Amino acid sequence: MPTKSAEGRRGSRRQPDASRKAILAAALAEFAQQGLAGARVDAIAEAAGVNKALLYYYFHDKDTLYAATLDGFFAPLHQRIMAICDQPGSAGERFLTYVREHFDAIAESQHYARIFMGELMSASRGGATQLDRVALKYMRPTGMMVIHLLQEGIDKGELRKVDPVQVVPSAIGAIVHYFLTAPLRERFFRDTPLAIPTIDERRAAVLDFIAAATFADREKGIKLAARIAAADTTQTRPRKPALSRTKGKRK
Amino acid sequence: MPTKSAEGRRGSRRQPDASRKAILAAALAEFAQQGLAGARVDAIAEAAGVNKALLYYYFHDKDTLYAATLDGFFAPLHQRIMAICDQPGSAGERFLTYVREHFDAIAESQHYARIFMGELMSASRGGATQLDRVALKYMRPTGMMVIHLLQEGIDKGELRKVDPVQVVPSAIGAIVHYFLTAPLRERFFRDTPLAIPTIDERRAAVLDFIAAATFADREKGIKLAARIAAADTTQTRPRKPALSRTKGKRK
Repeated sequence: MPTKSAEGRRGSRRQPDASRKAILAAALAEFAQQGLAGARVDAIAEAAGVNKALLYYYFHDKDTLYAATLDGFFAPLHQRIMAICDQPGSAGERFLTYVREHFDAIAESQHYARIFMGELMSASRGGATQLDRVALKYMRPTGMMVIHLLQEGIDKGELRKVDPVQVVPSAIGAIVHYFLTAPLRERFFRDTPLAIPTIDERRAAVLDFIAAATFADREKGIKLAARIAAADTTQTRPRKPALSRTKGKRK
Repeated sequence: MPTKSAEGRRGSRRQPDASRKAILAAALAEFAQQGLAGARVDAIAEAAGVNKALLYYYFHDKDTLYAATLDGFFAPLHQRIMAICDQPGSAGERFLTYVREHFDAIAESQHYARIFMGELMSASRGGATQLDRVALKYMRPTGMMVIHLLQEGIDKGELRKVDPVQVVPSAIGAIVHYFLTAPLRERFFRDTPLAIPTIDERRAAVLDFIAAATFADREKGIKLAARIAAADTTQTRPRKPALSRTKGKRK
């Protein structure tokens, strides 16, 4: 267990786990802000409070650090979403639970949207170094799981007859667009799109919109969406790792 | 009227309008591909078939050219969307027509998604040079127009009681996310997301999804969405300028 007094010793290899976590957290913030090309290893080491030699000792080079950073973000999100398969409840209920988990995962990390957009921008220039791997390992299985959930709901008559392959990008778009355009909304609508009450309202609106579009019995879907949006998940949800915080032990 | 034989004289200032258009088209492609920082004025002049002196004569510097490029893209899109206010039909019908126009505008330019994402990425780093201006001039009035349409539809009982401010990012997300993630879909699903039949299916699915989520009488909304998705708009829609093509007069 690291104590406050031990934090100063991070650079000395006595706290390998704490050092690794601090480096990954600093790297996530730096890569999200500057992109892969613009990110500086010096800045990451400084923000993590370790010396550069230790960073290279753990992560070899900037590309390896970038890959590890993306895994540190996507692996727990993927695990959280895939765990929905094993939950009780109807297919429609599990689909709406997926919507909530995806929404919350993005809401909890300001970095997700920027990392994802950065990789997509690089992809359109043919230069995405990690998108292929991350998409195959995490995004594709998640997408397939959601498509199967939708098909099950349609087959049982709980969801209306839609094309699941088309519903996935529509639903994900309704979830993520709000976060991608948060900088715009902040500037022009004097809004606070990332404040907690705003996020709660947005979560409820997204679940309502998607349920209304997909459930065969729309009123039933809307009520279920309201219940899932209001549920307190802090007890049941696996704790996310402290990756997006620079120092997990401090407030 | 420029003829084919006149094209070689573009650099000579005898064809000011054709030269300007060629420069703007080349600039749109270059800025979309490379971003503002990475775009090269040399490459733009070469692609436009003009000399660099002429480019600077018209556009002064790279930033001015970037601003003119964004106006060349956003102004006709904005005009097309705002024209929906004056069309006949119920508020719900005009709302779905807006959805179709927004979808088609993006589908017709591969550059939109990248320019928009580039500006958003820059905004989150505090460096967007044009986002403020473009958002205030084009995006904000469009958003307000759609919010008013939705409110009118709700007041008249045609749309269900939703928060119009929440519906806008959900609907726009359902429209644009597909295009933003097209590079992913191309790689991993061996899909051709930007092919014409695929685009027609996607348009119908987006209109269906949004109508199902918003109309008070869902079946009526779904039928209206199918009619609007299938409408041939080539006769009624104002021609978009040939900006996204390098040479408007050829094939």
